[in-house]
Amino acid sequence: MTRQSQLLLPTLREAPSDAEAASHRLMLRAGLIRQLAAGVYTYLPLGRRVLRKLEQIVREEMDEAGAQETLLPAMQPAELWKQSGRYDVYGPELVRLRDRHDREFALGPTHEEVVTMLVGGEVGSYRQLPMTLYQIQTKFRDEKRPRYGLLRGREFLMKDAYSFDEDWEGLHRSYMGMYDAYNRIFTRAGLRYRAVEADPGSIGGEGGTHEFMALAEIGEDTIAACDCCDYAANLEKAEYERASSEGSAGITPQAGVPAKVHTPDARRIEELAALFQKGAEAFMKTLIYMADGRPVAVVVRGDHEVNEIKVKNALAAAALELADPETTERVTGAPVGFAGPIGLGIPVLADYAAMEMEEGIAGANEKDYHIKGIIPAVHLAGAQAGDFRNAAAGDACPRCERGRLRFHRGIEVGHVFKLGTKYSEALNAKFVNAAGEERPFIMGCYGIGVSRLLSAVLEQHHDGSGIVWPESIAPFAVHVIPVSAKDRVQTDMAEHIAARLAEAGIETLLDDRDERPGVKFKDADLIGIPIRIVVGKRAAEGLVELKRRSEADAETLSLEEALAIAGAK
Amino acid sequence: MTRQSQLLLPTLREAPSDAEAASHRLMLRAGLIRQLAAGVYTYLPLGRRVLRKLEQIVREEMDEAGAQETLLPAMQPAELWKQSGRYDVYGPELVRLRDRHDREFALGPTHEEVVTMLVGGEVGSYRQLPMTLYQIQTKFRDEKRPRYGLLRGREFLMKDAYSFDEDWEGLHRSYMGMYDAYNRIFTRAGLRYRAVEADPGSIGGEGGTHEFMALAEIGEDTIAACDCCDYAANLEKAEYERASSEGSAGITPQAGVPAKVHTPDARRIEELAALFQKGAEAFMKTLIYMADGRPVAVVVRGDHEVNEIKVKNALAAAALELADPETTERVTGAPVGFAGPIGLGIPVLADYAAMEMEEGIAGANEKDYHIKGIIPAVHLAGAQAGDFRNAAAGDACPRCERGRLRFHRGIEVGHVFKLGTKYSEALNAKFVNAAGEERPFIMGCYGIGVSRLLSAVLEQHHDGSGIVWPESIAPFAVHVIPVSAKDRVQTDMAEHIAARLAEAGIETLLDDRDERPGVKFKDADLIGIPIRIVVGKRAAEGLVELKRRSEADAETLSLEEALAIAGAK
Repeated sequence: MTRQSQLLLPTLREAPSDAEAASHRLMLRAGLIRQLAAGVYTYLPLGRRVLRKLEQIVREEMDEAGAQETLLPAMQPAELWKQSGRYDVYGPELVRLRDRHDREFALGPTHEEVVTMLVGGEVGSYRQLPMTLYQIQTKFRDEKRPRYGLLRGREFLMKDAYSFDEDWEGLHRSYMGMYDAYNRIFTRAGLRYRAVEADPGSIGGEGGTHEFMALAEIGEDTIAACDCCDYAANLEKAEYERASSEGSAGITPQAGVPAKVHTPDARRIEELAALFQKGAEAFMKTLIYMADGRPVAVVVRGDHEVNEIKVKNALAAAALELADPETTERVTGAPVGFAGPIGLGIPVLADYAAMEMEEGIAGANEKDYHIKGIIPAVHLAGAQAGDFRNAAAGDACPRCERGRLRFHRGIEVGHVFKLGTKYSEALNAKFVNAAGEERPFIMGCYGIGVSRLLSAVLEQHHDGSGIVWPESIAPFAVHVIPVSAKDRVQTDMAEHIAARLAEAGIETLLDDRDERPGVKFKDADLIGIPIRIVVGKRAAEGLVELKRRSEADAETLSLEEALAIAGAK
Repeated sequence: MTRQSQLLLPTLREAPSDAEAASHRLMLRAGLIRQLAAGVYTYLPLGRRVLRKLEQIVREEMDEAGAQETLLPAMQPAELWKQSGRYDVYGPELVRLRDRHDREFALGPTHEEVVTMLVGGEVGSYRQLPMTLYQIQTKFRDEKRPRYGLLRGREFLMKDAYSFDEDWEGLHRSYMGMYDAYNRIFTRAGLRYRAVEADPGSIGGEGGTHEFMALAEIGEDTIAACDCCDYAANLEKAEYERASSEGSAGITPQAGVPAKVHTPDARRIEELAALFQKGAEAFMKTLIYMADGRPVAVVVRGDHEVNEIKVKNALAAAALELADPETTERVTGAPVGFAGPIGLGIPVLADYAAMEMEEGIAGANEKDYHIKGIIPAVHLAGAQAGDFRNAAAGDACPRCERGRLRFHRGIEVGHVFKLGTKYSEALNAKFVNAAGEERPFIMGCYGIGVSRLLSAVLEQHHDGSGIVWPESIAPFAVHVIPVSAKDRVQTDMAEHIAARLAEAGIETLLDDRDERPGVKFKDADLIGIPIRIVVGKRAAEGLVELKRRSEADAETLSLEEALAIAGAK
């Protein structure tokens, strides 16, 4: 039994005004965490308890999946990162330091290099494969904008796992083993989530990747999910079934000649739509990008958004970024807002939907002018057509082709990656296969942001009065509260109940503080223990109230009934 | 059940030649750890399992003692360390870094500053006291000479705890609570240790401090312990009962006049002893120190060692260090080796035992000359007499006065400190007492090197063939080994036994590798699981061999008898 009077549980009526996310506010108010520096948090006893429960769920499911727990160092020699090529790529998010002998180290945000060197040095034969190693460890990433409490921190708790296989079939089995374990973990943690297809991004990898997304409005990712089948993907990766007209050849060009129109100060689609009295879908949005340092123009329909990943992949570019205003002006001859695909001396990539327009309006590459009557099939004949846009809400599902895509916001709480040989080749980590040949390991990597998961659960599990913990990770199972701290009958019975529960192995918090009932109940709602047993005036009759945090009403029960429901038989 | 064929357990016949300590060699050979950089180690699955058991013992005993688990950040703003004054004092052992905004951080080697700020901010009233917070966390200390594997690493696992009380009586109770918990922890871990009195050292603190020392030859500390009572102290702090003659006044000066003797190149006591044909106790060793930048001479008998802590305390000096040769020459007028107490123009501190000598020989403060016939009571009348030497083996015990002090080597695995108000005053952390007055918290701090403890246990628990784990922290409880991997009767029975044990919740390792029996048994001895069940030729009769790692002989038992002994009823 834990006595609330002795517990470091500083609840707050109000959260600091800079705490934007609900989970952040609740963690501060319910005394789970305190900030030490931007993105760097202390876990108070209540927060530590919940974090340990999450760790334990993760550990059990990793062990169940056959992964082996290790602990890899946070301090990693910079040479390893240089050898993998990530020392420069990772940029300022990598925390760097020098030791007393001026040797460079990185503080691990992830451990591909270390684990690849380890297994490369210790595992020589295919007979020892497959092998998956994991750890639960504090990680460091110097985020540019740490925010939302534990959702985007600079020091955070992560479970990372790495699989080693002899071939791609083996990797797929290891990957699916982790995929299944992740589903069990998030389900046990009480999370509403979706596993979505994602882009491999900078971590590299030749194979597939899925992200596990907690559904929450605060999420920084957009998920496109079918309303009919189980297709779901990160927006950056989401595909869609093109409408039957899209991409088909042989639209008959309509008569008409492009004409320049004076559009003073109208740069944005909304401004143009108002000026032309047309919908956004009548325009051709033209953006100038730098692909590995060379300018390209990307054209999408006015109601669509460019998908940079698709553009990057189509160009096989290592880096793609929107051109700065000066470059745009130099390339187009006009300030930002007046770019168009006609007469540009650079490669033009036009999305299928833009190419399918009968005619469209685009910038004239001249300040304060646009051109109307552009017929893509005629005037954009030299452009590279392709899928360069984000899926849009209402697009047809690419898998079932019957459903429509809907958008959700999500928080990435886990990811599984097929890495292939990216690291094993860079770090020369090889094994000998059954035929006696040296081969690089085929690797996968698998992460769960444990502290972020805690935030994600809170985004979903709260109401206006505070936290509503899922039982599996609640800091305590039962909260025992005598209404009056001065009434010996009440306090004695509360002590008795708490002692009986503790004896039965139930994690019990006893509110033994000398506080007014209102304060105690407000705190109890805020910290959200699943079962509350209130010992009030009817204690003398042997009666108590039992209320579940997730339900509105309390029941009046005998002492023994309440104990039985709370788990002390 | 864990299958050895799938476990990352790379055993080695030989340890790298630079591994000096037995524990270091064993941890490498038995596949517990691997080095990533100097003083930075990876824990492989076997090492991680043992570390987790130690963590669990520590956690249970901390919880039992009423301490509350937290998790404080590794990244600490440098300002906090500047405020406490430790940023400069800590020197190059403090790992420092700058974030992307060029703000300075330290990686915590310890958390006094962070926890003091936290409690100062959150705890306002004496009603919430006493409070003890703890954490189990990776720490960083940039050791000048990392060595002995986990005994002196740069990244290591530590349990640190901090107590907050309203007065010194409360601190003493908190301190004794931790002291008792430490005894339970080290006993459960199977460690032979002594709790010894120690010097507070640089961490500061006005009160007492104890170190918990694992007894081991490799230890870097010397412990003086009574052979009669339970007195034990770190040599730097050890006291002794002075012989009845020592320190008494009124020795009658003997006749005689000091005489200069030519002693070419004789600088060290051994050289002088040979030259004069006298024992070391006939000489007066004179050393020049710099105390807060000013030179002082310290005189001890030739067979004694200066105790710098005692000198420092007697002078109330903040810093004391041996003078460099140039300074010694400047102060004494002679090179190192010829200093003596006569005619020096600086303060002289003479140890009681030196003052008690009837006459002695010391340096003449002139190259290649010593002086004999020095009568301390006459010629050192101006010196400050005191206890300035280390206890020596054979000295009388200061507590029981009957026993004699004996010396042991020890590894510091834990310490408990009475800090008092050092940090609460520096960081302005205050509470309001019952009288309504603001008071700084009275603090204690309590550390256990968890990874170092693992090494210390191994220094004590091994034999020529490998590790002999204490049951409480063994990575597995039972090791099941079929002699022949090709004999189906043996392998089936081994599988059956391992499955039965696993079902009963016994942590079981099954050696299912296709290896020769000699290899399997050598590995089994090396990794040292407490109970080994060998399934050999008599499997067909239903018989197996059970051997405890700590015993020389095996017993032949029926399958069911062996299972019962191993814990599967």
